[in-house]
Amino acid sequence: MKILIKNAQVLVFEGEKAVVKKADIGIEGSRIVQIGEVKADFDAQRVIDASNMLAMPGLINTHTHLSMNLFRNYADDMPLWDWLTKKIWPLEEKLTAEAVYWGSTLGIAELIKSGVTGFLDMYFFAKETIKVVLDTGIRAYIARGLTDEEEGKEAQLEETRELYQKYHEKEGRVKIFAGPHAPYTCSPRYLKKVRALSDELGIGIHIHLSETQKEVDESIEKWGKTPIKHVYDLGILERPTIAAHCVHVNDNDIEILANCKVSVAHNPTSNLKLASGFAPIEKMLKANVNVALGTDGASSNNNLNMFEEMHLASIINKCVNSDATSVPAEAVIKMATINGAKALGVEKELGSIKVGKKADIILIDLNKPHLCPLHNPLSAICYSAQGSDVHTVIVDGKILMENYELKTIDVEKAMYKTAECSRKLIES
Amino acid sequence: MKILIKNAQVLVFEGEKAVVKKADIGIEGSRIVQIGEVKADFDAQRVIDASNMLAMPGLINTHTHLSMNLFRNYADDMPLWDWLTKKIWPLEEKLTAEAVYWGSTLGIAELIKSGVTGFLDMYFFAKETIKVVLDTGIRAYIARGLTDEEEGKEAQLEETRELYQKYHEKEGRVKIFAGPHAPYTCSPRYLKKVRALSDELGIGIHIHLSETQKEVDESIEKWGKTPIKHVYDLGILERPTIAAHCVHVNDNDIEILANCKVSVAHNPTSNLKLASGFAPIEKMLKANVNVALGTDGASSNNNLNMFEEMHLASIINKCVNSDATSVPAEAVIKMATINGAKALGVEKELGSIKVGKKADIILIDLNKPHLCPLHNPLSAICYSAQGSDVHTVIVDGKILMENYELKTIDVEKAMYKTAECSRKLIES
Repeated sequence: MKILIKNAQVLVFEGEKAVVKKADIGIEGSRIVQIGEVKADFDAQRVIDASNMLAMPGLINTHTHLSMNLFRNYADDMPLWDWLTKKIWPLEEKLTAEAVYWGSTLGIAELIKSGVTGFLDMYFFAKETIKVVLDTGIRAYIARGLTDEEEGKEAQLEETRELYQKYHEKEGRVKIFAGPHAPYTCSPRYLKKVRALSDELGIGIHIHLSETQKEVDESIEKWGKTPIKHVYDLGILERPTIAAHCVHVNDNDIEILANCKVSVAHNPTSNLKLASGFAPIEKMLKANVNVALGTDGASSNNNLNMFEEMHLASIINKCVNSDATSVPAEAVIKMATINGAKALGVEKELGSIKVGKKADIILIDLNKPHLCPLHNPLSAICYSAQGSDVHTVIVDGKILMENYELKTIDVEKAMYKTAECSRKLIES
Repeated sequence: MKILIKNAQVLVFEGEKAVVKKADIGIEGSRIVQIGEVKADFDAQRVIDASNMLAMPGLINTHTHLSMNLFRNYADDMPLWDWLTKKIWPLEEKLTAEAVYWGSTLGIAELIKSGVTGFLDMYFFAKETIKVVLDTGIRAYIARGLTDEEEGKEAQLEETRELYQKYHEKEGRVKIFAGPHAPYTCSPRYLKKVRALSDELGIGIHIHLSETQKEVDESIEKWGKTPIKHVYDLGILERPTIAAHCVHVNDNDIEILANCKVSVAHNPTSNLKLASGFAPIEKMLKANVNVALGTDGASSNNNLNMFEEMHLASIINKCVNSDATSVPAEAVIKMATINGAKALGVEKELGSIKVGKKADIILIDLNKPHLCPLHNPLSAICYSAQGSDVHTVIVDGKILMENYELKTIDVEKAMYKTAECSRKLIES
């Protein structure tokens, strides 16, 4: 299948710079094969007139718990610890495969509708999520959440191995990660086993690190060191690692992150809403830490809208640093695209619109009052645009949404079923 | 004309509490005449099936410079002072009536589309904005921006009087305010004249106060007191006043604001993006200061989306106060509705859905993936909803938008003309 996107304003990276220029994009199979003025003999089966649209790389959400949308708007205006222990964990104890299947379906609908083409998920019943990924056409990086607080839970590790054997690289759209939840829910002994499995399978690690001051204080009390130093000493960070949050990090932590090439998944909405703190993003960027963006789950966010995360990552950090030039539009656009690809180890294939790369592309509808006039398209993306401005989404060369209409998901059914499963969990 | 909204989830205020309950709403002429199960003999000309919608009071934007959308995304990632003096003021010198007419038209389109039914504007060529307000059906509070730095500008005061004589209470939808820009652009002598005019006409005052630390430092250096104490001593705050920003306020300032019943227009996006600072919202709310919300202009925001402001006002303040229970969803919903009406002195007529009040109502489409499941509608409004979820907008009993379609504005033309005027200003 050949697709031709005509006359778009195309966001490309030229070295370190994001540049927007008028161009056509030729797609063949799953890849971008031409950018510029596409040759007359290209002979596409599908031509998309993008005259009043901006084409940019699909957004990459590097931290979410997709099916937590089951608990969306269920418990808010609460401190993180109470929220987790009194509201969320008791419900998660009762999770079912069916609930995760429908939560994942609705979650993927929400992701595609707001321009996300790939996501890193840490949650339970991972097979259900993978089923939906394979059926809907999105790209996913799946970490089965791992904890060893209680007896019998080490079977989770075996599940990661099974997922790897069955699904890793499946259709080129699924990759498996090891997902130890956090140093406060995984013992050193267990983390070493995770590290060994990651080595054995050659997979990356996704973990929550230094989300709250409480976590850091307790780590120092228990292990005499910060959570980052603690997992570093256990060898975790020698593996390709994506650390979610990293809100409370000191200079030594940042040095470790930079030296170990750990990527940070910054989740501004969740950090603000749960009052976790302001992550020192500018400091990490200056230390050459690869910072990507995530939404966290829809029960702490309370949506999966990466445009909100881009917006916040920029304006919050400006105010925290008392510097309106800090973390500019271009920086957050990279965080949401190419840095996400780097974090996931797929920057040769994804994260930018480039000949030879996979065709994961979104088209933003510029025909909106809040995007007019369009003086600076980078500013428009970061400061004015909404998730709901995403008009068309292409993943792996396939159109998953066109003219705001999802092609692979029955949204009405997904909403109905998710609400029903959610009600059952709460009432049971 | 009678309108019947059937089967909506309706957000009403019961005392201090926001409550959502299933009800019909009967509208006759410009007013709400029934809420609950509307009698069978109501005989409406228009029946709106709102079975999967949430009806809430129209949002009130208490601080904007509507036509600054001409400079949207034109100059970003810059400090406030450079942005104002090097980019914005030089362009504003060249403003034309035509540019403001089209900027206002596009601005009002954007406001209605994102659920705003009334706004307080401070800008130039106010007659043009009023023309558009009268034609489009929205409600507006208009302050011609006043400064006396240069010779000859005192004619502006006379213009406020003329606007008052010609338009105040026009169609019940326009009210005139006196709009002294700020204490750093208006001398004490001039501010006293503004105060006298406000007394004479019986109109409120809208002014920027304590937006940046620089402003406060310079005020203390020049007058020996904070901007708020300074204008208080000049008698400004004895008039009904809406003070935009109030970011850098000390305890004495807050006491003055509370005692003088000054309303604060909080503009979180603008304050963050320009790195102005974090306004102490919780402290002001606890001191019984009436805090409302605004977007500021689209060149410092860079849109006019009050859903973003609600979201930010809540989550930012949680993080600043290290308390996830701080400034909850209910508080920001009030800030965007009833507190806005109080600020404008119209709380008997507007700001809530109540029998006898004016019918300024918006319907939010709940049939969206990111609003499912709908456990807590207040959380959904504050944390999940988007401006683009606004399905229908009614002002003064007239439908200005239905099924996402604006009824009184040619949006395509407004976009074209605004972009053209903007280009002319920049190129001239």
